Amino acid sequence: MADEVKLYGLGGSPFVCRVKIALNMKGIKYENFEEDLGNKSADLLKYNPVHKKVPVLVHNGNPISESLVIVEYIDDVWKGLPILPQDPYEKALARFWAKFVDDKCMPAVYKVFGSKGDEQVVAEACEQMQILENELKVKGTKFFGGDNIGLVDIAADFMAYWLGIIEEATEIKFFTKDKFPKLTEWADHFVNCEIVKEILPPREDMVSFFKKRFGKA
Amino acid sequence: MADEVKLYGLGGSPFVCRVKIALNMKGIKYENFEEDLGNKSADLLKYNPVHKKVPVLVHNGNPISESLVIVEYIDDVWKGLPILPQDPYEKALARFWAKFVDDKCMPAVYKVFGSKGDEQVVAEACEQMQILENELKVKGTKFFGGDNIGLVDIAADFMAYWLGIIEEATEIKFFTKDKFPKLTEWADHFVNCEIVKEILPPREDMVSFFKKRFGKA
Repeated sequence: MADEVKLYGLGGSPFVCRVKIALNMKGIKYENFEEDLGNKSADLLKYNPVHKKVPVLVHNGNPISESLVIVEYIDDVWKGLPILPQDPYEKALARFWAKFVDDKCMPAVYKVFGSKGDEQVVAEACEQMQILENELKVKGTKFFGGDNIGLVDIAADFMAYWLGIIEEATEIKFFTKDKFPKLTEWADHFVNCEIVKEILPPREDMVSFFKKRFGKA
Repeated sequence: MADEVKLYGLGGSPFVCRVKIALNMKGIKYENFEEDLGNKSADLLKYNPVHKKVPVLVHNGNPISESLVIVEYIDDVWKGLPILPQDPYEKALARFWAKFVDDKCMPAVYKVFGSKGDEQVVAEACEQMQILENELKVKGTKFFGGDNIGLVDIAADFMAYWLGIIEEATEIKFFTKDKFPKLTEWADHFVNCEIVKEILPPREDMVSFFKKRFGKA
């Protein structure tokens, strides 16, 4: 029996794009269900009753939620490009950094735009991003995953693509080549990977969306 | 060469106890370093420069931080009692619920004591715990892991042991058999597992600690 793979998502969401990148790395075809978050589908509410959020992957009828949990599941189930390292220690480090992106980096960065660029809040976001910058410098590799993208790169897709878009929409700029030479170079490499590029939402649409959201339209 | 395993921790921490339970399930001997959080050791700062927090596991010189990342590492590296299921879907569900405990349940429960038992805050904590109660009911098993403890049980050690202690110390009680018949039964089973019981910090010490912390000493 062929696999039945459904993704409930939203094209503009960095969390959903994590899952799309992972599916792309495995060459998995799937049916995409675009959700309207103002009017969530009965399927979404049925498949993710706890959080009622996208993304949800449904594989042969089995629903899975939480983007990084889904990405690990995809890596467990399908062959194709590896997402997590095989070595247990390297794997633990990848999970550590993915969690750091989720728990520390993304909230700090989001807060900047909520605060309309408050200097102290920007400084706090830069402090977290500097930790990632240093990690990439110490590794000395193109990606967090090495020569190819892996779990941490996927987790950080927001920083590679969305951050620059929100900066443009809000005219609040702190993710610069000057401050973050390694991380900005990584972001360039990441968004230009074939496997990533083909699933990213159109830039102009995203800029308009965030202009509206942050009141600059 | 024998494995060298060091744990930098704090006996009273539910996060550190997660790691101790996992090591116990694998029958791993380790050197325990008790940290003074008011005066952190040079080793702790060296091994966990990002968060500067316990627990840190150092295995043959390789440091790992974040309790659930460590628990997964232990399961990857050592045979013994299994912590995560083998089946990829069951594994994803375990990770989903462990994350739910960390992201939703524990913060909601902690908030209760910070708020000195504010009714609305208690209701919000109960709402999250009710989701776990229902999950256990649907599963119909003794533990979240089935017949034996697994990742989710370990993640929820705070609720099984610490919650009742803090309730006693603060005289704020909401984790009752009445409201949570399944979850309180699970907590009883959990703290009475040999493998768990032998590493839990003494109850009276913990009650005193939380009485001081919450100003009831």
